[in-house]
Amino acid sequence: MNVAIVGATGMVGIEMQKILDERNFPVDSLRLLASERSRGRNFSFRGKQIPVEVLSGESFLSIDIALFSAGASISKEFAPIASERGAAVIDNSSAFRMDPDVPLIVPEVNPDAAFANKGIIANPNCSTIQLVVALAPLHRRFVIKRVVVTTFQSVSGTGKEAVEELKGQVRQIEEGKPVTKSVYPHQIAYNCLPHIDEFLENGYTKEEMKMVNETRKIMGIPDLPVTATTVRVPVFVGHSESVNIEFEKRITPDLARQVLNDSPGIEVVDEPEKNLYPVPIHCVGKDATFVGRIRLDFSRENSLNMWIVSDNLRKGAALNAIQIAELLIKSGNI
Amino acid sequence: MNVAIVGATGMVGIEMQKILDERNFPVDSLRLLASERSRGRNFSFRGKQIPVEVLSGESFLSIDIALFSAGASISKEFAPIASERGAAVIDNSSAFRMDPDVPLIVPEVNPDAAFANKGIIANPNCSTIQLVVALAPLHRRFVIKRVVVTTFQSVSGTGKEAVEELKGQVRQIEEGKPVTKSVYPHQIAYNCLPHIDEFLENGYTKEEMKMVNETRKIMGIPDLPVTATTVRVPVFVGHSESVNIEFEKRITPDLARQVLNDSPGIEVVDEPEKNLYPVPIHCVGKDATFVGRIRLDFSRENSLNMWIVSDNLRKGAALNAIQIAELLIKSGNI
Repeated sequence: MNVAIVGATGMVGIEMQKILDERNFPVDSLRLLASERSRGRNFSFRGKQIPVEVLSGESFLSIDIALFSAGASISKEFAPIASERGAAVIDNSSAFRMDPDVPLIVPEVNPDAAFANKGIIANPNCSTIQLVVALAPLHRRFVIKRVVVTTFQSVSGTGKEAVEELKGQVRQIEEGKPVTKSVYPHQIAYNCLPHIDEFLENGYTKEEMKMVNETRKIMGIPDLPVTATTVRVPVFVGHSESVNIEFEKRITPDLARQVLNDSPGIEVVDEPEKNLYPVPIHCVGKDATFVGRIRLDFSRENSLNMWIVSDNLRKGAALNAIQIAELLIKSGNI
Repeated sequence: MNVAIVGATGMVGIEMQKILDERNFPVDSLRLLASERSRGRNFSFRGKQIPVEVLSGESFLSIDIALFSAGASISKEFAPIASERGAAVIDNSSAFRMDPDVPLIVPEVNPDAAFANKGIIANPNCSTIQLVVALAPLHRRFVIKRVVVTTFQSVSGTGKEAVEELKGQVRQIEEGKPVTKSVYPHQIAYNCLPHIDEFLENGYTKEEMKMVNETRKIMGIPDLPVTATTVRVPVFVGHSESVNIEFEKRITPDLARQVLNDSPGIEVVDEPEKNLYPVPIHCVGKDATFVGRIRLDFSRENSLNMWIVSDNLRKGAALNAIQIAELLIKSGNI
């Protein structure tokens, strides 16, 4: 396969390079595409130095798979071009996610929907992916009535400037200097910001509405009651989610653990008596979505609380995109 | 008033000294009590140096008000002694909170319950206080059916060793050294731990059950449906809470804002279009409970999401205790 990564020098783009290698993805050639700023950079892939090329309409000649992770405006401009030139596009931006003609895929949840694509497949938002990986198998067995989720999202979800901003602010505080900020509107070091992406008219952020709308689309339940509060926390990598779920059918923590354990892509870490529960720093670099703190919610019938953590750069972005590509190859769709 | 602070050298004890002064509390004498380890320390109060004394049964002679903040076992041993010697005891530990003979008081919520005390009044858990300050006025007007809360709690809630542990771990990471830990079972720097206080048989932590049980007791609704997930985050001071509330009656964000604005101890900060919402670092050193991100929860009728932040050392502990003392003085109960 001739593979192109658009946004190859970003945090997700670099993770994509790593994961293509780790998973022995059938790469014949790899093209690394980025903006003018990255001209002259090189990355090593399977022993070869690959130069970063500046993205243009000509970048997609003889490309089989184009993995986009360079923001919605780049995707809007170049994904259709890549697709016209014959590449299967897997887009990690929000550009096409809610487009009814574009499948929004989490391979553990709705793989079959991928095959009806018209050349572009969307990769969901990071915080949505780890949520639906855990919700879908529980829904199949116990039927979800409503989901209330609160997220604890790491700065790498914003990008490397945000990682640098957190590091820089911690250093400024250590040195007693004034804290400067440019990525977030408020200091992120030692703080929590209930603000991810832009605010909408209805009082929600775009991130919160992504969680609502993308969850519904991926699970194929257009009116699934979901509400979200998304919060940025001073963590480098790994998103955590506190999730309250009401079910139609009787559920117990043991049944939920059993169903989750038997489901792909999930690792249950739930032995609180041994201080074992998922925490973001333990999930960095891992593929699974980790679930713990599973317990009955005594405030409502057939309800559970749980805690879901995953590496937002991997399952939340790069890994899920590459799993979509694998799915297309395996099924003969590329 | 002759005032004693038990646990005077802890973070809450020091905050109590500061707040007694700030609020012009009528202090005739101040006795600072702590363990053997603090012998020889002095604190300046209103221009006088006050030596720290080692706590003993004799410490409470001629004390009018004893403010306890030295942990449950110290309170269990010494609060009854202080009370017998005639001091009005306000206890910030968990020792007596659920004792049916001990009122559990948030002055904005259930001041009248304070007067039925038998010598000891309990100060609620930090995360509970800021929650009920916001819930109570909304309940009076719209009748709460259920509360789902997820907390983001700062390390100062654990104490100064935890503040030092966070600082130390950040330094170790900066210097590329191995991270050491003694207060928390996992690294707290750049991490989130869904674990506050001990785990119970039912899968909840004690902190989570405190939020459930204390909220019910303070609000006087023994079966109020409440469920909680409590999480420690790398923040120094200030607890944040993501709260989902279902009401009996029709509610709108504007009505909620109006009711909260008109309620004591609350400041509504809710102009997301200007990036204005409560964040912990802005609440440090302030008395109010700050509420923002108030919006309709479209997943259920008559439901809201909101975000509540307060200084856990002040309203969550020292300030609330001193407000209870003020309430007793004002009503002639001391």
